Amino acid sequence: MSLEVPPGDSRERFVCATCNIIHYQNPRIVAGCLPIWEDRVMLCRRAIQPRKNTWTLPAGFLENNETCFAGAARETWEEARARVANPHLYTVFSLPHISQVYLFYRAQLVDGSFAVGEETLEVALFAEHEIPWDELAFPVVGKTLRHYFADRRERHFPVRTEDIIVTKPNVQGAIEDCAAEPPVPP
Amino acid sequence: MSLEVPPGDSRERFVCATCNIIHYQNPRIVAGCLPIWEDRVMLCRRAIQPRKNTWTLPAGFLENNETCFAGAARETWEEARARVANPHLYTVFSLPHISQVYLFYRAQLVDGSFAVGEETLEVALFAEHEIPWDELAFPVVGKTLRHYFADRRERHFPVRTEDIIVTKPNVQGAIEDCAAEPPVPP
Repeated sequence: MSLEVPPGDSRERFVCATCNIIHYQNPRIVAGCLPIWEDRVMLCRRAIQPRKNTWTLPAGFLENNETCFAGAARETWEEARARVANPHLYTVFSLPHISQVYLFYRAQLVDGSFAVGEETLEVALFAEHEIPWDELAFPVVGKTLRHYFADRRERHFPVRTEDIIVTKPNVQGAIEDCAAEPPVPP
Repeated sequence: MSLEVPPGDSRERFVCATCNIIHYQNPRIVAGCLPIWEDRVMLCRRAIQPRKNTWTLPAGFLENNETCFAGAARETWEEARARVANPHLYTVFSLPHISQVYLFYRAQLVDGSFAVGEETLEVALFAEHEIPWDELAFPVVGKTLRHYFADRRERHFPVRTEDIIVTKPNVQGAIEDCAAEPPVPP
């Protein structure tokens, strides 16, 4: 496998020297749910790294041949043995430094039942004043929860989008270029 | 490269027999723009297959280390040599049969200028009554345009989401399973 710019392309790609197939690498979608039951939301305490022991919304990598909500519902089942319905796309985050796009859906728990699933230590429902704000796994989780409780007071839930820009040293020690803004044409 | 279910996984993945690396394949994001100039929208006539000669909104695969809008703006520059600003996420389509998720942004042309770019035969601005409805490249293009002109009359542009479900024979002649609905738990 070699790294080269294929004909007609402008970026380096992994190309198999034997079969000449180009192995593109593109951003991945993380699909998740904000599961709601009456006035509370469901969170899962992570059993795995990264951020083991912290609380998160159920979410994970979208698989081929899934719709975004099907992936979010599958992750909610896998991590919390909970069924969700009546989904509404709610938050969309670009995380260019890790080439991920998060899509969270507001959704209702179907019957209020849940249980500890794969990768989870504990599952619980939280009212707004019970949210463990200092023990949340990822910024996208806190941002989604804050929008939700604020929007609930207004009874209006527009889709929220945000770019989360992190500049970090790469393995060579240089700052990675995260294209938050479109390239400025000449 | 072999197809096997890695330990702790539930799906077949491509695994390199030599280096043991798992090559995950996940849905790809297509980021695009609905570029607006006064009362008209910009479309591009495709110079390449599929759907050569038909009209499309500028869009293409999101690249690593790009935000969604940065990718949409880059594609708009590459295909139509046009600069866009003031983006608002507008339509989100899941296409599970081809493992793609489309994200289109409403955005303003910065100065109304454009030119034929890569992969494009012609670029033009269209008022609503001028849209070549029968010559659009993809269903997501027509759906996004229809929403836009309807929403413009209401002066309200909520984010629109839709799953586009197509069942088609795969190479073995069987109908592919497109998970539009989440799996029904036992």
